[in-house]
Amino acid sequence: MPVLTNIRQLLTCRAEGGQAALHAIERAALVWEGDTIVWVGPEAALPARFRAAERFDAGGCLVAPGLIDCHTHLAFGGWRADEFRMRCQGVSYLEIARQGGGIRRTVQQTRAASEDDLYRRCLRFLQEMALLGITTVEAKTGYGLSLEEELKLLRVYQRLQTHQPVRLIATLLAAHIVPPEYAERREAYLQLLMDELIPYVGSQHLADFCDVFVEETAFTVDEARQILERGKAFGLRPKLHVDQLHDGGGAQLAAEVGAISADHLEYAAEEGIRAMARAGVVAVALPLATLYLRQRPMNARRFIEAGVPVAVATDFNPGSAPTYHLPLAMTLACILCGLTPAEALKGATCYAARAIGRDHELGTLEPGKKADFILIDAASVDHWLYHFRPNAVQATFIGGQRFENYAVTG
Amino acid sequence: MPVLTNIRQLLTCRAEGGQAALHAIERAALVWEGDTIVWVGPEAALPARFRAAERFDAGGCLVAPGLIDCHTHLAFGGWRADEFRMRCQGVSYLEIARQGGGIRRTVQQTRAASEDDLYRRCLRFLQEMALLGITTVEAKTGYGLSLEEELKLLRVYQRLQTHQPVRLIATLLAAHIVPPEYAERREAYLQLLMDELIPYVGSQHLADFCDVFVEETAFTVDEARQILERGKAFGLRPKLHVDQLHDGGGAQLAAEVGAISADHLEYAAEEGIRAMARAGVVAVALPLATLYLRQRPMNARRFIEAGVPVAVATDFNPGSAPTYHLPLAMTLACILCGLTPAEALKGATCYAARAIGRDHELGTLEPGKKADFILIDAASVDHWLYHFRPNAVQATFIGGQRFENYAVTG
Ligand SMILES: [Zn+2]
Ligand SMILES: [Zn+2]
Repeated sequence: MPVLTNIRQLLTCRAEGGQAALHAIERAALVWEGDTIVWVGPEAALPARFRAAERFDAGGCLVAPGLIDCHTHLAFGGWRADEFRMRCQGVSYLEIARQGGGIRRTVQQTRAASEDDLYRRCLRFLQEMALLGITTVEAKTGYGLSLEEELKLLRVYQRLQTHQPVRLIATLLAAHIVPPEYAERREAYLQLLMDELIPYVGSQHLADFCDVFVEETAFTVDEARQILERGKAFGLRPKLHVDQLHDGGGAQLAAEVGAISADHLEYAAEEGIRAMARAGVVAVALPLATLYLRQRPMNARRFIEAGVPVAVATDFNPGSAPTYHLPLAMTLACILCGLTPAEALKGATCYAARAIGRDHELGTLEPGKKADFILIDAASVDHWLYHFRPNAVQATFIGGQRFENYAVTG
Repeated sequence: MPVLTNIRQLLTCRAEGGQAALHAIERAALVWEGDTIVWVGPEAALPARFRAAERFDAGGCLVAPGLIDCHTHLAFGGWRADEFRMRCQGVSYLEIARQGGGIRRTVQQTRAASEDDLYRRCLRFLQEMALLGITTVEAKTGYGLSLEEELKLLRVYQRLQTHQPVRLIATLLAAHIVPPEYAERREAYLQLLMDELIPYVGSQHLADFCDVFVEETAFTVDEARQILERGKAFGLRPKLHVDQLHDGGGAQLAAEVGAISADHLEYAAEEGIRAMARAGVVAVALPLATLYLRQRPMNARRFIEAGVPVAVATDFNPGSAPTYHLPLAMTLACILCGLTPAEALKGATCYAARAIGRDHELGTLEPGKKADFILIDAASVDHWLYHFRPNAVQATFIGGQRFENYAVTG
């Protein structure tokens, strides 16, 4: 039964008390058994029965729950660095799409990649993410866009769940765009989703969530409603990409279908935000995409004031957010979205766990929860997210094991 | 005479051809002797006389000149994380200043810090910067604001020049703000600068440059002109912080006094930009400050089109840019200021060297220049700055020595 001591401050990030309440314990200790936390509290109050246990020295670091990236597009082929350069030069996203760029290009490159190639790329991403303090990753499909290719991505995610320690939650995003070969027969693609993909993925338990990209270039609110209701019938809880470039009524839809989260929300309307609050939908801020696209940021304060918890994620993907640096996303959530550092941390732990339906076991440091925690070299949460460094995380523990000690297998 | 081989692409960043011209060599080799480059070219063309030399394997990395951070406020006491949190909550900079925050607070904390403390902090910053690929740093005073305290900061910089390998260039920024004890007798502080600080620092060769912060809360254009002319008389070349929050005629002033660089320039007027081009002033973009302050970014394209070279730097300081991550600043220069990745690299090497008067020996990879270079894990410059990672730099060489091998002395 190992004990972590010499903790400057332990941020439990417990749910109660709202976005700003981290429920910090000064000069704390943390005890776990197997993969589960059994005790947290002030080191001075460490019960006698734990005093003989194996000790780990936190070296005066902050300790926080392992970070949860609750929105990524992890498995994709190729990159789009040339499009980044073109956008810096002022070429519009639309013009790039017209020249064959954008999501369609990644679909092409993902289909061309072998399952093994995709697996190895994701494995490397997850290792680098773990060193940044990320212990759980939600990963969407959406670059396959056929039965076979979407299943290929889900197999990659299943292999990753088995062969490396970062916890991985799969989301079916077959409704990312209408793939080019269905451009003239949109209905047929929707039928494929409704009749084959969703029933198969749901009944085989290959994903936990069904997500839809609601946007003029992707799917309408009505199509999303249909798709998500179908997903629910097969046990896939709804998630949504909504209101990113204009108010499309997406927040309202999220409330209506009982989505576990609605993500982006830069242009969400007041009415939709109130509906999300009533329905208990988590709002996911994606400020890296805001930055890379030079868009209007999501105003997190409006959500918090309405009673909607705000999670923070990277949106890691090769177009609008080509980085998995979640601590950078957290700093940007402060600068661009108006969260305080404490609120951003709760958004990348407690509420991120809620956004992936894992708040019963992840996202907070409490007895009974998984022993996923990180050591941070900083005097305070404010200091951590203000003084941006390449990586302020000194160590990452997943299920009570130090990540750096895992032998990752093929 | 060591030879570096197996270089995917060597970016010489030679001056000719303008901002976008990196003069790349594919499958290159680099030869140096002592601290100086003696040959660069395609590996296949490596002259016979170098073939028996000691080989280093670049592992297929990109090789670029060591990065130059040509604008930092390196030596300061304390931090201001609490102000960051307040600004995220919507409290204005002015209100924070009214509560005793802002530059004045750092002045207080810097005066309270011992020379040894400041030295140790800077030493650690420089080590972390070197691992990010930074081989030269310009460092300003400006948190001392008395003869004794400004000299304390310059002594810190002198010790750093002796005891660690990152090249350090000192700038006197005694005209950062009027210190609080002179609030009611501004003229007396200007007199101190003109009669004591500048003559002493200039004649003792304690700094290379004299800088002035031109802003409503700091110094006027007329005061800056006086100060910089006095600096010139004592061998200190002018630099300027100008036009950050509104057009204050700073670009024009920079041209008029023959400044080596004008920095910030978010609101520079067209006329001023043209004057800078005629006078050969380098424009320094500081996009981290733009991001942290949520300001209008500098439009780099306007400068390049007018014939003004654009350098990129961090502005590292505890208020508006509390990070020394120059590669992040380069990515932001692309996203916010409209540079391409190639242009941002030239801005952090060739033109940054020019902005600190070291382009005769630093900033490009050519025979006769210092062997300051870095190995970057990326397929291209576009990919490096697009796919932001904690640190893509694999190795840093300064004067031909691998940084990681230096024994840093007290
Ligand atoms: Zn997304
Ligand atoms: Zn500055």
